[in-house]
Amino acid sequence: MFNVTFLPAGKQVQVEQGENLLRAAMLAGVQFSASCGGSGSCGKCKVLVEKGEFESDVSARISAADQEKGYALACITRINSDIEVHLPEDARAIDRQAIERAMLTSVEPSELLGHIEINPSVQRIYLELPPPSLEDNVSDIDRLTRALEKQLGSKKIHLSLPLIKQASSTLRSSGWKATFTVFATDEGFEVTQVFPGHRTEPVYGLAVDIGTTTICAELVNLENGRVQAHRSDYNSQYSCGEDVISRIVYASRNRENLAHIQGLVHSTLNGLIQEMLKETGVQSQDIADVVMSGNTTMTHLFMGVEPGIREEPYVPVTSAPPVLQAGELSLEWSDSARIYLTPSRASYMGGDITAGLIGSNLFRSEKLTLYIDVGTNGEIVLGGSEWLIGCSCSAGPAFEGGAIKHGMRAATGAVEQVRIDPGTFEPMILTVGQSSPRGICGSGLIDAMAELLMAGVITSKGRFNTELDTPRIRGQEALEYVLVWAEDAQNGQDIVITEGDLDNLLRAKAAVFAGITTLLNAVGITLQDVDELLIAGGFGRYLELDKAVTIGLLPEISPDRVKYIGNGSLLGSRVMLLSRRMRQEALQVCKKMTYLELSQDPSFMDQYVSALFMPHTDMSMFPSVQASLMG
Amino acid sequence: MFNVTFLPAGKQVQVEQGENLLRAAMLAGVQFSASCGGSGSCGKCKVLVEKGEFESDVSARISAADQEKGYALACITRINSDIEVHLPEDARAIDRQAIERAMLTSVEPSELLGHIEINPSVQRIYLELPPPSLEDNVSDIDRLTRALEKQLGSKKIHLSLPLIKQASSTLRSSGWKATFTVFATDEGFEVTQVFPGHRTEPVYGLAVDIGTTTICAELVNLENGRVQAHRSDYNSQYSCGEDVISRIVYASRNRENLAHIQGLVHSTLNGLIQEMLKETGVQSQDIADVVMSGNTTMTHLFMGVEPGIREEPYVPVTSAPPVLQAGELSLEWSDSARIYLTPSRASYMGGDITAGLIGSNLFRSEKLTLYIDVGTNGEIVLGGSEWLIGCSCSAGPAFEGGAIKHGMRAATGAVEQVRIDPGTFEPMILTVGQSSPRGICGSGLIDAMAELLMAGVITSKGRFNTELDTPRIRGQEALEYVLVWAEDAQNGQDIVITEGDLDNLLRAKAAVFAGITTLLNAVGITLQDVDELLIAGGFGRYLELDKAVTIGLLPEISPDRVKYIGNGSLLGSRVMLLSRRMRQEALQVCKKMTYLELSQDPSFMDQYVSALFMPHTDMSMFPSVQASLMG
Repeated sequence: MFNVTFLPAGKQVQVEQGENLLRAAMLAGVQFSASCGGSGSCGKCKVLVEKGEFESDVSARISAADQEKGYALACITRINSDIEVHLPEDARAIDRQAIERAMLTSVEPSELLGHIEINPSVQRIYLELPPPSLEDNVSDIDRLTRALEKQLGSKKIHLSLPLIKQASSTLRSSGWKATFTVFATDEGFEVTQVFPGHRTEPVYGLAVDIGTTTICAELVNLENGRVQAHRSDYNSQYSCGEDVISRIVYASRNRENLAHIQGLVHSTLNGLIQEMLKETGVQSQDIADVVMSGNTTMTHLFMGVEPGIREEPYVPVTSAPPVLQAGELSLEWSDSARIYLTPSRASYMGGDITAGLIGSNLFRSEKLTLYIDVGTNGEIVLGGSEWLIGCSCSAGPAFEGGAIKHGMRAATGAVEQVRIDPGTFEPMILTVGQSSPRGICGSGLIDAMAELLMAGVITSKGRFNTELDTPRIRGQEALEYVLVWAEDAQNGQDIVITEGDLDNLLRAKAAVFAGITTLLNAVGITLQDVDELLIAGGFGRYLELDKAVTIGLLPEISPDRVKYIGNGSLLGSRVMLLSRRMRQEALQVCKKMTYLELSQDPSFMDQYVSALFMPHTDMSMFPSVQASLMG
Repeated sequence: MFNVTFLPAGKQVQVEQGENLLRAAMLAGVQFSASCGGSGSCGKCKVLVEKGEFESDVSARISAADQEKGYALACITRINSDIEVHLPEDARAIDRQAIERAMLTSVEPSELLGHIEINPSVQRIYLELPPPSLEDNVSDIDRLTRALEKQLGSKKIHLSLPLIKQASSTLRSSGWKATFTVFATDEGFEVTQVFPGHRTEPVYGLAVDIGTTTICAELVNLENGRVQAHRSDYNSQYSCGEDVISRIVYASRNRENLAHIQGLVHSTLNGLIQEMLKETGVQSQDIADVVMSGNTTMTHLFMGVEPGIREEPYVPVTSAPPVLQAGELSLEWSDSARIYLTPSRASYMGGDITAGLIGSNLFRSEKLTLYIDVGTNGEIVLGGSEWLIGCSCSAGPAFEGGAIKHGMRAATGAVEQVRIDPGTFEPMILTVGQSSPRGICGSGLIDAMAELLMAGVITSKGRFNTELDTPRIRGQEALEYVLVWAEDAQNGQDIVITEGDLDNLLRAKAAVFAGITTLLNAVGITLQDVDELLIAGGFGRYLELDKAVTIGLLPEISPDRVKYIGNGSLLGSRVMLLSRRMRQEALQVCKKMTYLELSQDPSFMDQYVSALFMPHTDMSMFPSVQASLMG
């Protein structure tokens, strides 16, 4: 067995001779981006071996010079001795502060939550039961359920065998005074916890958004509805692939992989919970309920179920999972907490969107509303209290900084705002954390693209205007715009936007906008009929609406009719945590929604082609942008 | 570690130096009677150490001569080397043939079952589902439940997480053709099993009576209602104490004891099931449902729950356990089978009696019926379809051969029928298995007592008539009747009935009869009003009604109004296995029944004292017996 040490964190693991270095990293719990699933093609698992012997396959991703210095791709490297490996900057970019900022904070929901009655699924009930006597000699459990029936007004009180044992011994040893946690089911109530005497601590719940990239959690006091703490972290499944498809591929390879990838999301969540417990002093046993929303792949992997949605007809295993018990999963902080997974409408219209429709109150809105959640996939829903129609379009990774030469996530050093002087073509930039720039994140890219368009640096088709007199535009066949010169950049390299990047962005925005117009056409309405536009997703937080409209990603709608929801998945989870009736509504939302499969819609491709132009080939949809471009 | 070998079976176990020999026997799965719970007082764990070293405490139960030969009480013996231990005859008296005969066969229930519709809780459903397509792309589980809803006419189809995984992978790998086992719950249906393709094997169930002494099981084809096999065996909890009280004491000592005693009943049941599967070729996975009835202590110990009913106010932990899953318990033959434990009315009116009332059809009888189940406890129920009242009286172990000098269970060699010549006072006896006599079982004792009474050998108060000229009556202060001379007996000792034995029997019969009259008085009716007498229990099978009436154990009722039910607990279990509606009826029976706590009834003691006479102080209740005694 050899020791493998990952620097700078110093994480260690023991492996057999010949073990794959990427696998060793996974075993050690080291996270880094590996979007190609270990095939050696993405080059993102590049490491520097500082000490020790290894063999590595040849790769175009590692130059001969780098190879000599000891650089290698972990996924095609085998370990032949004790070894010390240094992770590159990118791999360590787990910038907690930035994720918190990017993903967690949603619109303060007081405004939206004003109408939510606090009526959670769990409650604590303290009982002082009359001790048994010869006159009143019903069994312990009958004595208990008799009292609970009276309090809860239900005849259906259920206790599992372990709870029967615990309730009886607790009641007998505590003088028939005990506190019970009960969970409302469809049929009645289930007793999930017993404490001796009067447990006065409030009962808590967790609202969780399991995103492909980030997991966000809130610890909520279920008695007053207050969020006591919140945390988020990268989903450590990241090490098995960046996007859902590569994770599905990874999970489907064998049973061990499936267990591993399930364990990763559990361990990320466990970590968040431990931190929140530490911060607040809340005890883990006081968390009795969890509402969790995520896309279909995320919820399946959380349950340890192979999603099975990779290929046509994109059918998931389950769209409305049963309420689970923490003990069924490897969630170390609780055995008894119940876990509700928000139901999904379709494979690519997950519980995160259902939650968003609940959290934003769209499901009972009288206004005709357009709901857009843009990430790797763009999910779009149109409707209100009467009807709902939705679709999902694959935008690709561009909006998250993927498939972009200097693209990166919205972590410290990512360029997130850009202004370009239309006279000098010089940029002004702002980065996340206002530190020296390392790359460009999604909102920075949209900003840059809109500014480049308005300044005339690029055409409506995303091509560079080669006639401009500026050193920022360079290259022969592969043209690029230098956003940051090497001397200003963190890693001493120019940060550029290439024509290829622009093309990727154009395709991404065209896919989303084509989704919107296809949906509108399907119900025979126009953008003018839309009363309200709701923008959800972490992405939405940074997005400058006018820039997104300028490039034609979002429709031109009066700003007073636009609302940012932020993390709708988390918001809806909190709403369903506080009000059990909202869980029934969530199921109704899924039942009510018509899902349009775009790959089956013959008009989608036409809409897509029309949208491969900024803002759009049909300029009448963007009168203000047209005016600006003209001016 | 030392090897301990138990002869003649040759069972072996390894133990530490100084281990207790009774504990070693338990570890080895060797069963023997130990009614004092290991305190050294009952002397029933006497063994012969053939080889090896041991230390043993001094006991009055072992004579100096026996001690020299190597006899010792296992419970007070510590092991100091490899050792070989011979079990005495009594300890090995696990006479399977006799138990089968004694406990299993009930009245052929066709007569009673004629009106039972076969509508079990479980059923198998074969489905050929339409494969998913882009037009019909609901999730796998929605696809499944949609089809099941149609077949079952219910909207509430539940699958647990493991079943979701299994159903999905089975459907996908078997071309969407699979067979499902579904279990009817109060709310709807639960899918409990999945098989690829069309599983044509019928679905089976088990009807089980868990008795304190014996466990009986039937393997029932749930499609045609036929019993495919049946088996019974001593409850191996026997090694922890003979009666319920000593087992409760044993189980309450510590957690290990509770787990051990639970494991014992499971292993007995597992053994019976394996034998039935072997006999019939049925596969264990085709047993999908179990209905189990037993007294409150037995069902609690089966679940691993401390019964807690030893002391006033005799309150059990639960009277209507939830449906369990075999996997929750250590039942090695199945994970998915559901286990229904018949609800009980009171601590000393268990699920075995509820089952008997269901199996005998008493619960919907128009006739005023008296139901009597006599064992260590006598449970008595009076009523019919309109109302029910019941009580339980402690008869003590006499009817099972306990607390009787030469008493024994109804195993091979037990005297079970007796006639005494009124002229010569010589007996004629018949034993179980018609082998040479070893002792007297309950029915033999009742026979003997009645015959001794009729022959004038004893008085109505159970005292010997010392004036008779027969060598069979002997002794000075402690008088006894020699039923079998030493030369005829299996172990070369006289088999006798002592005045003490007669006294114990008299008290036992008085307790039962006082229970009957107290119950009748409570509702203000007399024996003449009773339309039907049902006699249940293994005991009832051998009982000669007229003898039981002669001593005043049972009331004098016209024989055509008496029915033997046999093992009512097993019969009722089968009925509830075949008809799920009967399980609801069982709960109703418990709710409807008034339970009379005799220890709280001031008139019971008077009734008891009046019954300490054969047949009774009030001879008007026994006109025929009176006439015989006069004649």
